[in-house]
Amino acid sequence: MLPPNPTTAPHGGEAWREDVALERIADLLGASLLSTGPTGWGDDAAVLERPKGRVLLCCDAGVEGVHLDASLFPIADLGYRTAIAALSDVAAMGGRPLGVVVSICAPGDVDVVAIEQGVAAACATVGCTVVGGDLSKAAITSVTACALGEEPLQGAIPRSGARPGDVLSVTGALGGAAMGLRRRRAGMGLEDPELRWFRRPRARIDAGVAAARAGATAMLDISDGLARDLRRMAAASGVGIDLDDVPLCDGASLDEGLGGGEDYELVVAHRDAGALAAAFESASLEAPTRIGTVTDLVGEVRYGGAPAPDLGWRH
Amino acid sequence: MLPPNPTTAPHGGEAWREDVALERIADLLGASLLSTGPTGWGDDAAVLERPKGRVLLCCDAGVEGVHLDASLFPIADLGYRTAIAALSDVAAMGGRPLGVVVSICAPGDVDVVAIEQGVAAACATVGCTVVGGDLSKAAITSVTACALGEEPLQGAIPRSGARPGDVLSVTGALGGAAMGLRRRRAGMGLEDPELRWFRRPRARIDAGVAAARAGATAMLDISDGLARDLRRMAAASGVGIDLDDVPLCDGASLDEGLGGGEDYELVVAHRDAGALAAAFESASLEAPTRIGTVTDLVGEVRYGGAPAPDLGWRH
Repeated sequence: MLPPNPTTAPHGGEAWREDVALERIADLLGASLLSTGPTGWGDDAAVLERPKGRVLLCCDAGVEGVHLDASLFPIADLGYRTAIAALSDVAAMGGRPLGVVVSICAPGDVDVVAIEQGVAAACATVGCTVVGGDLSKAAITSVTACALGEEPLQGAIPRSGARPGDVLSVTGALGGAAMGLRRRRAGMGLEDPELRWFRRPRARIDAGVAAARAGATAMLDISDGLARDLRRMAAASGVGIDLDDVPLCDGASLDEGLGGGEDYELVVAHRDAGALAAAFESASLEAPTRIGTVTDLVGEVRYGGAPAPDLGWRH
Repeated sequence: MLPPNPTTAPHGGEAWREDVALERIADLLGASLLSTGPTGWGDDAAVLERPKGRVLLCCDAGVEGVHLDASLFPIADLGYRTAIAALSDVAAMGGRPLGVVVSICAPGDVDVVAIEQGVAAACATVGCTVVGGDLSKAAITSVTACALGEEPLQGAIPRSGARPGDVLSVTGALGGAAMGLRRRRAGMGLEDPELRWFRRPRARIDAGVAAARAGATAMLDISDGLARDLRRMAAASGVGIDLDDVPLCDGASLDEGLGGGEDYELVVAHRDAGALAAAFESASLEAPTRIGTVTDLVGEVRYGGAPAPDLGWRH
């Protein structure tokens, strides 16, 4: 936790400079974090209230040059998108986030406060806060967000529970992140709304909770592209998947919808698509779109009757 | 969590290669992690049992070239030492670790399984397991370990609770990590036992629990060097500190003891050093060493009657 172990003494510490950055971060995140006694910023670990159920723990990394092209996007986006990736993993289990800690490794001239602002902004979209973290010097910038979540009362929804005959549905529309990246690379202005799917993805916490409440049999979030993530669900569940529809964001191509990744929508398997839709409706959420069915052809993911393309590799 | 969001599709994914590494890691960590239903490896988040008390959450990063000189030490050491840094933060609150997730960012030719082995070995020393993580491609290697802990029944011990008149004690002996690094740089063989303080530090979980049970007023772990970490305790507590002794590892210099960092011993403030020693004895732990007292000279850390040197900068 901040401040321990940033750039440690045996290696040429710059811990005091880190302490200054930490003070700015604590200011940014608000005095509330500092007024909670032994918890949060400035101590060894954050203290969080005891959860009602079992806990969910996950982490995701974002790396400059891999997950973010710093010549095209502000560095704060790396913080935002990495935090959403971790929060989305909580959503994919049907849980609610309790808090996030973030580790930032960056060269001395990188605006780590901006990265932290990105993380905090992402957390705020799901009513969660950044409770601590760590700063380290590094030759390139990377961010790891670790999210703590609360398991749903119905139990976490694994990706391994899909059974032949289940209906597969997806929240929202796909391909928006890949489309946004493509448009930015082609010169679209940074503030164009079409880039929002890439720059400001959503973690579908409420949808995950609704799916768990409705009795979903399996769920995962689309982080690496629909086709690839469905292969993972099929492998984990020991089933096959027949895909017959892919809801696309306006302007996204089918390839982007099938293979784009980073959409962070949820794929839900359920015995009864009507019951799932009803649960979403009662939670005032847009109904998920039916995209296919679960089959007994173990490991086979088909689209339109043929093997689904192995998209994701080619981007 | 593994496997989501490793090297995502919009950026040129290598997710299948990651899946192979993950399988090797899962094999390494044992089938127990795979047999726990919706929990652990291969799903979006790990599911852990509900803790008895409030939870502790913290993370620490280790970066090649900053925390590890890969020309002198095997890359597995980065995993081991980073995990200990995070577990030590749990110890410094008086807690017990419940689980660790680890994010590894590394070039394609780095042995990520070896790093994970290092993390797993460190966790095993305190009876805890790696419950999940994330792998990403990156130009340089970095590791972030995030530890979830259980708050002690007495409440987490902050660094802000020291009061004038408290006795300060430290577990173990100091300077061993800096000494080990110095000796390795001077050509000492990698397997020499003198390097163990640097390569295989301990997270003092049992000592932290004993200190919490004994009613410690403040506690932190020595990650950045005794002098610097005491300044943090003094600042957080609004007190001064008079240091009159520094227990040194055999062969460590006073500078290494005061400023070396990464020793991960615990500094404990307590009203009654005798009661603290008795609690350690009843837990079959070596008694901590009295190193000084807490004063009312706000922010002043003195050693031998003079301002303590600001070591850590010069290494």
